[in-house]
Amino acid sequence: MADAALNALIEALRRLPGVGVKSASRMAFHLLQHDREGAQQLAQSLMQATARIRHCRLCHTFTEDEVCSTCSDPQRDASKLAVVETPADQAALERTNAYRGRYFVLMGKLSPLDGIGPRDIGLAKLFERATDGVVQEVILATNFTAEGEATAHVIGEALKQRGLQVTRLARGVPAGSELEYVDLGTIAHALVDRR
Amino acid sequence: MADAALNALIEALRRLPGVGVKSASRMAFHLLQHDREGAQQLAQSLMQATARIRHCRLCHTFTEDEVCSTCSDPQRDASKLAVVETPADQAALERTNAYRGRYFVLMGKLSPLDGIGPRDIGLAKLFERATDGVVQEVILATNFTAEGEATAHVIGEALKQRGLQVTRLARGVPAGSELEYVDLGTIAHALVDRR
Repeated sequence: MADAALNALIEALRRLPGVGVKSASRMAFHLLQHDREGAQQLAQSLMQATARIRHCRLCHTFTEDEVCSTCSDPQRDASKLAVVETPADQAALERTNAYRGRYFVLMGKLSPLDGIGPRDIGLAKLFERATDGVVQEVILATNFTAEGEATAHVIGEALKQRGLQVTRLARGVPAGSELEYVDLGTIAHALVDRR
Repeated sequence: MADAALNALIEALRRLPGVGVKSASRMAFHLLQHDREGAQQLAQSLMQATARIRHCRLCHTFTEDEVCSTCSDPQRDASKLAVVETPADQAALERTNAYRGRYFVLMGKLSPLDGIGPRDIGLAKLFERATDGVVQEVILATNFTAEGEATAHVIGEALKQRGLQVTRLARGVPAGSELEYVDLGTIAHALVDRR
């Protein structure tokens, strides 16, 4: 186990989120013993992704082009702009087929405890995008976590000052759930936001 | 999210053990957004490890040389051969500083349910190694799981037929533990193996 190449591989795998030294060793062992083709494929994908993928000029998401496919789709309603934290959140909204507007992907969230402030998540870019004269409604679709709510609050206040209509995804009881098993905070929100 | 390079990276990350599509997306996002240097380092380590690392001619573990550092160490007692499942198990034994013999690393274990038979874990190579005339005692140090025990049993029977002394790591109560909190199977084994 004292081989330089093996140790370097384990160290590199440890930089992946959620991977400690035991998982990294297990991954290295698996790749070298059972899936060297997979290891080479992973190496190639990493090189290609880091070389090709950049941020969309308009919505800040990952793309290989200057403008991503969602932003360049003329069928999209340019008057609506949904603000999400990550491309995965955008993908979740897309899967609903209930939204045909455009997006802005923060690529993060405000998190003062981790030292992530307005600059790190490109809020200036969002404000520029939202005040382009075409966008009329900004839908805050950040997560309903403490950081996500704080991020939504900061963005919402700033955009309201700029005269834009700002909405937030509704909080409430999840579809298909029985009240008995829903947590109290959610029921309270559903009561307040009743319609 | 419809980018080819990004999807290829997520697919490649999913080939790592214990990584599903959600973790893979999170890893890809993290690398591209926060650690492109780490991504490139991982790519390089993967290429170097797959190019350089092979199996030790004598003990079958990973090494960059023809014979690993443990096998080529003249201080080691060549009359003892410990059979372990993986390099990680070997490292655990080494950390005890209680064993100065040599090793054979199976790089797996018998697991008929997963289609892993004697050929897949190189038992022929082990038998050849154990009957080199120098080895006198084979210490079965496979794990104390169902598969590990079965593997030890198969190897033990085969080597006894070849006239070798075969021993197994002792089962018993872990050091530092109170009997009250030790599981029944372990206590039963400790009783049977009492000395």
